[in-house]
Amino acid sequence: MTKRNQILIIGHDEAGCTTEHEKMAYETGSEVAKSGSVLISGGLGGVMKAACHGAHDSGGIIVGIIPQNDSTAANEYCDIVIPTGMGHTRDFLTALSADGVIIIGGGSGTLTEVCAAYMHKKPIAAIKNSGDVASKYADQYLDHRKNVKIVGVSSPKEAVKYILEQIAK
Amino acid sequence: MTKRNQILIIGHDEAGCTTEHEKMAYETGSEVAKSGSVLISGGLGGVMKAACHGAHDSGGIIVGIIPQNDSTAANEYCDIVIPTGMGHTRDFLTALSADGVIIIGGGSGTLTEVCAAYMHKKPIAAIKNSGDVASKYADQYLDHRKNVKIVGVSSPKEAVKYILEQIAK
Amino acid sequence: MTKRNQILIIGHDEAGCTTEHEKMAYETGSEVAKSGSVLISGGLGGVMKAACHGAHDSGGIIVGIIPQNDSTAANEYCDIVIPTGMGHTRDFLTALSADGVIIIGGGSGTLTEVCAAYMHKKPIAAIKNSGDVASKYADQYLDHRKNVKIVGVSSPKEAVKYILEQIAK
Amino acid sequence: MTKRNQILIIGHDEAGCTTEHEKMAYETGSEVAKSGSVLISGGLGGVMKAACHGAHDSGGIIVGIIPQNDSTAANEYCDIVIPTGMGHTRDFLTALSADGVIIIGGGSGTLTEVCAAYMHKKPIAAIKNSGDVASKYADQYLDHRKNVKIVGVSSPKEAVKYILEQIAK
Repeated sequence: MTKRNQILIIGHDEAGCTTEHEKMAYETGSEVAKSGSVLISGGLGGVMKAACHGAHDSGGIIVGIIPQNDSTAANEYCDIVIPTGMGHTRDFLTALSADGVIIIGGGSGTLTEVCAAYMHKKPIAAIKNSGDVASKYADQYLDHRKNVKIVGVSSPKEAVKYILEQIAK
Repeated sequence: MTKRNQILIIGHDEAGCTTEHEKMAYETGSEVAKSGSVLISGGLGGVMKAACHGAHDSGGIIVGIIPQNDSTAANEYCDIVIPTGMGHTRDFLTALSADGVIIIGGGSGTLTEVCAAYMHKKPIAAIKNSGDVASKYADQYLDHRKNVKIVGVSSPKEAVKYILEQIAK
Repeated sequence: MTKRNQILIIGHDEAGCTTEHEKMAYETGSEVAKSGSVLISGGLGGVMKAACHGAHDSGGIIVGIIPQNDSTAANEYCDIVIPTGMGHTRDFLTALSADGVIIIGGGSGTLTEVCAAYMHKKPIAAIKNSGDVASKYADQYLDHRKNVKIVGVSSPKEAVKYILEQIAK
Repeated sequence: MTKRNQILIIGHDEAGCTTEHEKMAYETGSEVAKSGSVLISGGLGGVMKAACHGAHDSGGIIVGIIPQNDSTAANEYCDIVIPTGMGHTRDFLTALSADGVIIIGGGSGTLTEVCAAYMHKKPIAAIKNSGDVASKYADQYLDHRKNVKIVGVSSPKEAVKYILEQIAK
């Protein structure tokens, strides 16, 4: 099999994204690329764009799965664009395309992707000090099914390490 | 316009659904039907089925939007079945098809529908004493955007009344 | 089971729809309603709207499955609107929601729905004298698989009769 | 912009795929890779697999967009897998992800992708001597809108050359 590991980074779009979030996302994207994994991303702004930027600068391959039906809506760091034309519903496709998911901050869109990943039993890491969805759901199960625990981690490096260990199992 | 009001009832599937949940769901479905609204439902078991049953017994029209691509997978109370063939991704279509949403209990699938409804600014009511997602998110916003507050209500009757008031605005 | 028969009428949107097409579509919608079946429709203009109009005037229930994410984009004869937010991709959902399909004229969008219905082995009738996709594919299989023959019929009445016979099998 | 050109190759799945089709698909995949473009593919068997094989052997990047919700269903030449969980409806996502489309043979599934690409005005080339959908629709418009002509070409090399010229416009 030639399939690469595919890691999704999710979190605040440009509306809620601070420079702290951007720095974390850039670093996480960079770690994903250095591990030889493909970065899966929502392909737009905020955490998505910073993660793509980091992966790009470290020579990674970046896939942007976007809500629009036209690839020009993606950020400039995406090597490959999947324009879904499905609006927010594309949040399910990003989750299904992930072998593992890393959360940095995040609001209701991020939470949707977490739910989708949880229902499909993907490993999920939340960078604890990044706030919002990441902090709120760190070290928790989403429901009584206990599909997968959302594991709290303290850094981008630790996040990628955890996801790769889970994928290798 | 001949379009009817369309109200979505969501919550535990058969795995987590208690007889308490079923009773509430039956009664909520019944109230939806009595108001002349169409019941939108995920079309399968648990809260979905009990809500359809209640709406059916009160003479309502019931639409089941199901994950499978074959209409025979729907419960026996659905008048109209929309087989999406999209798996859990259909949770977005139930939310988009709703003019308002009522939550009874619920796990990660329910939470997905709440996120989708929230992102599209639909009125949402949570029956507080029904536990899980309904109780956890009652009287809260899902994120910093404050799109819509998930309003806690104490009964099926109050839930339908609240949703109809919001739709009328 | 309380599920009704669900019949999809497809064809030219307002761009290519003549008064002849409209008349046929109105009459076909009316026949669907008189048979007690639910009309499934793309919910917009042209053949879609005329079919909904006919079904409405004969007291039928009309479901519009639309590309937009907002129910107000549907035509005024839809009782129930399923806003998919999926653009043209919704052509698959109309086909999956049909127990049988009737073609009146039609272009590339119509052909997509025919392909989707064919792949899912739904009975399909084409009103032969309505031109374009309907005339071109009447009495043919779409490919070597011979899933279902697209049966040419000469009138709306015959079309609905054929579809109901096939559903009853 | 770092986005690569993305070219989709479509045609018979394993059911209708001859060794002639396979040879053409392998060669076309190889030409796509040699041009530095990313191969977009339905990710399964027949023409899809042969095209992926050719692109793989020429060092290309291959994306498989598959109907299943689990990446293990893809063929072994896909570097990146997008598991949609949407069944045949994924035919719209392959088309939307393409900057241009090449047809080799093909049945009703292929025709769906052609319709979707046509509605979104993507350049489309059909290898004329490959039979079925490719031969039937070569040098034709799909409908009265005349969105894009499906251009008949005589070889894989010519197909890729034509698509790249159209993308460059």
